[in-house]
Amino acid sequence: MARASAHPMQGLVKYHGLKDSVKRIPYHGSISVCTAPLESTTSVEFHDGEHDQIEIDGNLISGRAFERVKTVLDEVRKIAGSDKTAIVHSKNSFPQGVGLGSSSSGFATLALAAFEASGANYDMKLVSETARLGSGSACRAVTGGISEWITDKSGSYSVQIGSPEDFKDWSIVVPLVESITLTEKAHEEVETSPLFKARLDYIEKTLSQMRNAVKNKEVEKIWELAEQDTRNLHAVTMTGREGLLAWNAATAEIMHRTTELREEFPIYYSIDTGATPYLNTYKEHEKRVISEFKETHGVKEILVCSVGESAKIL
Amino acid sequence: MARASAHPMQGLVKYHGLKDSVKRIPYHGSISVCTAPLESTTSVEFHDGEHDQIEIDGNLISGRAFERVKTVLDEVRKIAGSDKTAIVHSKNSFPQGVGLGSSSSGFATLALAAFEASGANYDMKLVSETARLGSGSACRAVTGGISEWITDKSGSYSVQIGSPEDFKDWSIVVPLVESITLTEKAHEEVETSPLFKARLDYIEKTLSQMRNAVKNKEVEKIWELAEQDTRNLHAVTMTGREGLLAWNAATAEIMHRTTELREEFPIYYSIDTGATPYLNTYKEHEKRVISEFKETHGVKEILVCSVGESAKIL
Repeated sequence: MARASAHPMQGLVKYHGLKDSVKRIPYHGSISVCTAPLESTTSVEFHDGEHDQIEIDGNLISGRAFERVKTVLDEVRKIAGSDKTAIVHSKNSFPQGVGLGSSSSGFATLALAAFEASGANYDMKLVSETARLGSGSACRAVTGGISEWITDKSGSYSVQIGSPEDFKDWSIVVPLVESITLTEKAHEEVETSPLFKARLDYIEKTLSQMRNAVKNKEVEKIWELAEQDTRNLHAVTMTGREGLLAWNAATAEIMHRTTELREEFPIYYSIDTGATPYLNTYKEHEKRVISEFKETHGVKEILVCSVGESAKIL
Repeated sequence: MARASAHPMQGLVKYHGLKDSVKRIPYHGSISVCTAPLESTTSVEFHDGEHDQIEIDGNLISGRAFERVKTVLDEVRKIAGSDKTAIVHSKNSFPQGVGLGSSSSGFATLALAAFEASGANYDMKLVSETARLGSGSACRAVTGGISEWITDKSGSYSVQIGSPEDFKDWSIVVPLVESITLTEKAHEEVETSPLFKARLDYIEKTLSQMRNAVKNKEVEKIWELAEQDTRNLHAVTMTGREGLLAWNAATAEIMHRTTELREEFPIYYSIDTGATPYLNTYKEHEKRVISEFKETHGVKEILVCSVGESAKIL
């Protein structure tokens, strides 16, 4: 039996759309930052059972969610040369389905714990590749800190490009907003937006700017680029066939108020494929930001995060 | 002395950006529908004064607004061979600066009244061309009903492509929302969006679909295309250099609720470069729509419109 933990993430240059939806190969690279102390913890035990048993937050899983987990277990079994079945227990320290990326940290811990439990030889690149089969962004939750998801001749995996050590004064304030999870639908729809090809052109330049900002530890530039990419991503999702509008009233309110607050101190919003914004600011402004948004209509709770480490065996 | 009246408009395939900002030649064609009973009324009198006197809603106008009016008066004087100065009185039956397009109806009535008062020969194409010099969309308020703004070898002007007679059951419900007027800024910013070229490609196909829908009186198709174009337009404005987000909390709330209501009956939103949505539905659902949105936080007042006629001499 092995147990692993990992943090979910905030997209910085956001992932959008799969060129190959079975192998989960993305259309373009992406960069994200892991958000501690939010955490998934998963244990995997292989034994001689009849079929896999998967429990998440106390619920036995079936259907589509079960199949996604089984895909990752099958890949580990293939590499380990094993035909044992697995007992999986996973739990999240944060709410699911509100756009906080529980699938990223969940699949990162699943892949890592499964490799460890299987007895196979593995490295973090292999864990990243394998976690990706369950959820694209999970490859970045494996490597932690600020990570880039790269697809090249050697595979589709993540590497850490910024260490948590270097971004200690970065506070991520998260006002939780009522959200419909659109991620899979948005990824399926991506090619139906007449603006998607223009995003592909824009993204290369943006990835390069973000890599430089991370390398030079220019945290405000990172935040600015992430905010800009937020509008670009949502511009594409809302112009797809179904016109998916992820933002609700509270989201719009927070976006405008954040822009106003920026007259006073550095603060930027960033929104993944959902309604809940991440507010990036310095730790010294954290309390001010919480007090600004705790009464906003539609905000249920405010979480405060910092840059998290890579996935690890417990 | 001559007086004219005209209705402002709701953009259907929306105008965005000027290839020539002095002559107000747009990047692409656009189609809109005039909204009665909202109305501007303008009188123009030429006399031997020292300079033009311009009053709008009881206020004497100077600065940028004065210059825009003078541009139109100068063009009329050039055509009429006159060097007289003008006394202009204009009033609007609806609030200005909330995204209802008072500049479109204002300049349409100004151009029409000025030609009539000048004694020059004119036709509606010339009025449309001249009104455009003050405000791009004014060319369409001249021709009324559903109008298309065309730029071709013979000029840049509007033609009516759908008559109010043919769309008598179309109700336009307008929940007025606190709005910052972004129109001029948004037009200036247009080329800075990495998505703008993709809009230009999309727009030709959309114009053709909209022309067909108007010709065939397929009103729900008109509404659907207008809603789609709303998201496309705002996708471009929010990805420009300044990231102009025109929607506020009430706008987002109304967009989502409209999408839900559409499960029950045909209703579509459409938002010009501002925060106030136009809700397109059938007259039979008007009361239901008003009662749905009158309590929405951020809605100040609800106006109800129908398809309006062209500008006319009173």
